[in-house]
Amino acid sequence: MSIGPEILVKFFSTAGDCGHYTPVVVGDIQVLERCNRELGTTVVFTSWKPGDPLPATQIPVVQVGSLDADKLIWGQPDKTTGNAMADYITTAVKGIQDGFFAGMTTCPISKSSLNNAGFHFPGHTEMLACLTGAEQYAMMMAGNKLRVTLVTIHKALKEVSSLLSVDAVFELIAITNNSLIQDFGITAPKIAVAGLNPHASENGIFGNEEQLYIAPAIDKAHQNGINAQGPFPPDTIFYKSAKGEYDAVVCMYHDQGLVPFKLLHFSDGVNVTIGLPIVRTSVDHGTAYDIAGKGIADQTSLQAAVELAAAIASRRKQRNQL
Amino acid sequence: MSIGPEILVKFFSTAGDCGHYTPVVVGDIQVLERCNRELGTTVVFTSWKPGDPLPATQIPVVQVGSLDADKLIWGQPDKTTGNAMADYITTAVKGIQDGFFAGMTTCPISKSSLNNAGFHFPGHTEMLACLTGAEQYAMMMAGNKLRVTLVTIHKALKEVSSLLSVDAVFELIAITNNSLIQDFGITAPKIAVAGLNPHASENGIFGNEEQLYIAPAIDKAHQNGINAQGPFPPDTIFYKSAKGEYDAVVCMYHDQGLVPFKLLHFSDGVNVTIGLPIVRTSVDHGTAYDIAGKGIADQTSLQAAVELAAAIASRRKQRNQL
Repeated sequence: MSIGPEILVKFFSTAGDCGHYTPVVVGDIQVLERCNRELGTTVVFTSWKPGDPLPATQIPVVQVGSLDADKLIWGQPDKTTGNAMADYITTAVKGIQDGFFAGMTTCPISKSSLNNAGFHFPGHTEMLACLTGAEQYAMMMAGNKLRVTLVTIHKALKEVSSLLSVDAVFELIAITNNSLIQDFGITAPKIAVAGLNPHASENGIFGNEEQLYIAPAIDKAHQNGINAQGPFPPDTIFYKSAKGEYDAVVCMYHDQGLVPFKLLHFSDGVNVTIGLPIVRTSVDHGTAYDIAGKGIADQTSLQAAVELAAAIASRRKQRNQL
Repeated sequence: MSIGPEILVKFFSTAGDCGHYTPVVVGDIQVLERCNRELGTTVVFTSWKPGDPLPATQIPVVQVGSLDADKLIWGQPDKTTGNAMADYITTAVKGIQDGFFAGMTTCPISKSSLNNAGFHFPGHTEMLACLTGAEQYAMMMAGNKLRVTLVTIHKALKEVSSLLSVDAVFELIAITNNSLIQDFGITAPKIAVAGLNPHASENGIFGNEEQLYIAPAIDKAHQNGINAQGPFPPDTIFYKSAKGEYDAVVCMYHDQGLVPFKLLHFSDGVNVTIGLPIVRTSVDHGTAYDIAGKGIADQTSLQAAVELAAAIASRRKQRNQL
């Protein structure tokens, strides 16, 4: 059992009134109540089904699966939790598709548990893309100072160059631009595109991916009416973007974006899957099995993720009503 | 002419009393006086030679070369300034070796001007290593929140993996450790070593440089009594180091270190050449020809670099007196 249920219970014990939205848990009520007991919290959960009236003060839980809550061991993934994770995800997606939920926020999953349970996806994101039929989607890390999107994600650094192409960079610029407009309500987004190499290669002195792929992708973005700029030297563009000069930085590889993002948003960062037909945000951290059940996991990212999902859902709804 | 003389004049017009050290300029007094006139500053420079008594209030300038100050054009490098840069550097090094100066701080140089003038070094650092006979030296970027050192510097990202080795990583750990002790006065340094790949490759899932080179280099550091830890996932180690958990982060490539460093120390970062027999710090920015002469160049990094050189020189002197 990971920190997932722990941060959920901590979130509800500190969140107070959410105002314009009602969070519903898709999970196991017994696991949440065990967390209450062990963490000393007193969140009142109640079983709820899509279509039922919402409870006045209790926290509604769509009961999925049947984990034996008392047998689960903190800090250990296992096959039953892998199946449970998959059930939570499919139930939440169906609830959105059926119009009962405005969007979803996910707690961290164990990729190996999911795989052991027979769901062969690298992670949540790919599973959600499959369930919703999305073809062009991407991960954005969002905070109040910095937003970054990644052309390549979990790849060895030496392979990154060979995975770049004009299309891959352009598509990410386009998805990022669309999301800034529809999800973040930015009318005319300004997007910075990072180079791959030190100093963005200084016109080809160290590497040529800027000329081969990145600059042509930016040209194509301009042809499509997108205000993308670059390729910029990576070592200064995040400072400029965090100062407010750009609305997002399109990054070529995982650590190019995640190093500056986590430096500014270690606790309050949100992972947003952009390009999906449904609204989905996630915490920006992992399962943290090493600290699970100790009462020290930080729910800040979950809280930020829930609030951002609500904000995105609200903006998309407004746009659809125009 | 770059921002070099401009930030020098701005530094002296704002620095006030430097206390325990006296800055001496190695340069061209006519150029500095032109800056005074054009920037509206009133710094009083006076010609000075090593061995002369120091002036009471005026700023001593070791007059080197004979640039025609009025013919130089802001924002344009040229061959005469390339020769002048080389002369400043060799004069300063000789002054240190002869015992007249405790250390040196350099303004930015134009690598192409230096090369055009016949000095075929990639930059200051390599020229200084040559002049002082240093074999193992490295660049450290130092600020009050973060210190980073780099195994590879100006290399295409796709070449980085092939440039790593156990020895290269170990030697940088060792040079970093020595500098933290002798230059920064840290008795028992704690050094973090970053992985190369996302999540430090998660035990080889994305890349294997952590197992091949980085972990063995850390083992070798332990055998040499150095407290180095890692390889750490790059996306969280800079946050932890900036919080104070480590004294420096040994990085595998330019942007791994420079992206987080410039995010925290955009204006006040200092470049320190560690491993040299002489004390040398530098501004952490370039020649900025695009803004030279406009009065907007920021002298903060120069000021921090001069102060750090004085502090390092003072610590090395104390150690030598023990």
